[in-house]
Amino acid sequence: MINAKVISIGDELLIGQVVNTNSSYINAKLYSNGFNPERVITIGDNEKDLLAELDDSMRNFRITIITGGLGPTHDDITKPILVKYFNDELILREDILEFVRNFFAKRNLPMPETNVGQAMVPSKSKVIWNHNGTAPGIWIENDDRVFIAMPGVPFEMKAMIENDVIRMLKEKFASELDYVLKSKTLLTTGIGESLLFEKIGDIKSIIGNNKMAFLPSPLGVRLRIDVTGKSESEADRIIAGIEGKIRSRVGEYIFGVNDELLEEVVGALLRKKGMTLSTAESCTGGLLSGRITDIAGSSDYYAGGVCTYSNEVKSGFLGVKEKTLEEHGAVSEETAKEMAEGIRKKFGTSAGISVTGIAGPGGGTESKPVGLTYIGYSDESKCYALKFNFGDNRERNRIRAVQACLNLLRKELNEK
Amino acid sequence: MINAKVISIGDELLIGQVVNTNSSYINAKLYSNGFNPERVITIGDNEKDLLAELDDSMRNFRITIITGGLGPTHDDITKPILVKYFNDELILREDILEFVRNFFAKRNLPMPETNVGQAMVPSKSKVIWNHNGTAPGIWIENDDRVFIAMPGVPFEMKAMIENDVIRMLKEKFASELDYVLKSKTLLTTGIGESLLFEKIGDIKSIIGNNKMAFLPSPLGVRLRIDVTGKSESEADRIIAGIEGKIRSRVGEYIFGVNDELLEEVVGALLRKKGMTLSTAESCTGGLLSGRITDIAGSSDYYAGGVCTYSNEVKSGFLGVKEKTLEEHGAVSEETAKEMAEGIRKKFGTSAGISVTGIAGPGGGTESKPVGLTYIGYSDESKCYALKFNFGDNRERNRIRAVQACLNLLRKELNEK
Repeated sequence: MINAKVISIGDELLIGQVVNTNSSYINAKLYSNGFNPERVITIGDNEKDLLAELDDSMRNFRITIITGGLGPTHDDITKPILVKYFNDELILREDILEFVRNFFAKRNLPMPETNVGQAMVPSKSKVIWNHNGTAPGIWIENDDRVFIAMPGVPFEMKAMIENDVIRMLKEKFASELDYVLKSKTLLTTGIGESLLFEKIGDIKSIIGNNKMAFLPSPLGVRLRIDVTGKSESEADRIIAGIEGKIRSRVGEYIFGVNDELLEEVVGALLRKKGMTLSTAESCTGGLLSGRITDIAGSSDYYAGGVCTYSNEVKSGFLGVKEKTLEEHGAVSEETAKEMAEGIRKKFGTSAGISVTGIAGPGGGTESKPVGLTYIGYSDESKCYALKFNFGDNRERNRIRAVQACLNLLRKELNEK
Repeated sequence: MINAKVISIGDELLIGQVVNTNSSYINAKLYSNGFNPERVITIGDNEKDLLAELDDSMRNFRITIITGGLGPTHDDITKPILVKYFNDELILREDILEFVRNFFAKRNLPMPETNVGQAMVPSKSKVIWNHNGTAPGIWIENDDRVFIAMPGVPFEMKAMIENDVIRMLKEKFASELDYVLKSKTLLTTGIGESLLFEKIGDIKSIIGNNKMAFLPSPLGVRLRIDVTGKSESEADRIIAGIEGKIRSRVGEYIFGVNDELLEEVVGALLRKKGMTLSTAESCTGGLLSGRITDIAGSSDYYAGGVCTYSNEVKSGFLGVKEKTLEEHGAVSEETAKEMAEGIRKKFGTSAGISVTGIAGPGGGTESKPVGLTYIGYSDESKCYALKFNFGDNRERNRIRAVQACLNLLRKELNEK
């Protein structure tokens, strides 16, 4: 396999001021094109560290991609160091200078003189054109290795990857790309990591020499399958085999694959069944309707919702009986049911969903601890509420409650 | 300076499926506590690479923090490798097992047997308790070096850093920490990066030899000031001087400092003024009430809200006149005003706020493009709506609309 290393340069990355999203982006592109990202290094604007990394790359990596340190100011060290390391010299490229001048002219700005330096590139390099900025990318080949330097500005770097870098890499390594890496992620919710692990059982017998990773979050556990095949279709076949075995064991918890969102899945189901939805939220305070309306076109099936933070609103607005609130409390099966029924009728939708719980940190008691949540569902044929406990962290239990509402809807709609 | 390296483990990070936010978080904490983050490495679930990194740490770094690979499943390699590298053995800690059992018991779940492994730790390590999960952290000292391993789940890792790791590091290296790094972030909203930059003027004359960074996001531009002092009080004095100069130029845009949230600031103002609030949302679909209710105790001042995604709900529910909707449309100054007035009266609160806009990607016209948004405000003495355009990206313009609602509330409440 053709392995790759990404070197991200910049003090702002090191001290945690900026999150390094460039390396994830680059690696996802490399990986999906059959290259194997093995390492990401973040270092400061520091000559010694970069030279050591170039040495390491010469020994261990076929592809090295450097981002950052290519701008026009004093702390931009990448170009001089590449020149030094490869015993090269900088030459002025008139075509780049012309491009940079135009870049400023188009914006009605004078070109600062420092930008002439942008047109200087190592004599033995190829140029990767930067259509979104003034610093060109640099492509250096050294026998069977490639070194690529690009600016750290995501908007500039991404266009260079899309337009040229991946294509150039595939050309360079065409004779060796005789395999395909593929991955697929199965998205589960409503089950914890260790229970999921147990239910799946002997993983080795399912995946063979391929890989599977468990990636937990408050939204659920993602299962990522990574396989290598001789061809696209072989890799697809292997993935399908593994996926089938996993689904036969824990299929009921899988709501989607790859980047799908549960709110998208639920929206598609509502659309398919020709149903409309309204929501009544207490503890989640609008996050559920926020998730539902994240999806463009959700107005086709979503009428709206209420956030009933006070009891007055619950009774005055949704028609939850005062007796119910008195006898059972706002956080109860009965209230959740009346909320779901109330919102469905008030908004005239085919289904209504409600959620009421103790988000915390205050408000918990022994019998009703923080995290206790009831989710109610109502349509014309039934009305019920389920009890959950989502733990004692306010932020997380709100996220988990919203996910559980959507998952309950998914299950209901699948049965329609 | 005491240097530090972060090793992030996980194939999901390497292939770009998950962005590495852990290392930024850790490094920001290290940096602000006087340590010097010099390197971040991301590697896969791979024994050889991790062993090589431990070798490098023994040669070059005082502090090494490893995240990931500590869970209960097959791909969790960190603990066995630490044991091997430091020639140690795993022992069962009854107190951890008890904690893990309780963790499941509290959630009314059976403890899967794989979790017994979580209670096994290297005999020469200290334990860093994990209050948000089942995998404990590991602290290993080797002469003047420290190796720390934590789970990769951000929620678990962050609590461990906050509660114990920074404190333990400061104790361990107390005799060497003879300088103080301090930073303060001023939070602005409602003004773009370049205009803010212009209004602040000559930065060098404000910050001297210290640092200032502009960090833009859809919520606003954060201004981060970093200073070094001989003592805590000297550093504080330098920061106060810089902050004063910035506030004198752009104070009206600053809503808070450091980790403060605009919804928190608004909540505190409502509480202080003895006012209550309700919300009527269209394009933001509940995100505004979601933000308001993120704050614990918000039920003291927030009665609730409606998400009126359909026109029927806008008129039938909020009392927006059908004539207004017909003549001016759902996205108009008039509708926004009637929504704010309607929700305030319906929910009986002292103020009401509304937002209606074209979130996109569909629904835009020449006269009402995607991103056009009206925010309405109503209290007993006034009612008005302001027009905004938040651009053509659905996700970002929803976020910006919510922030603008909160900022409008902040300004109104500050005048009360």
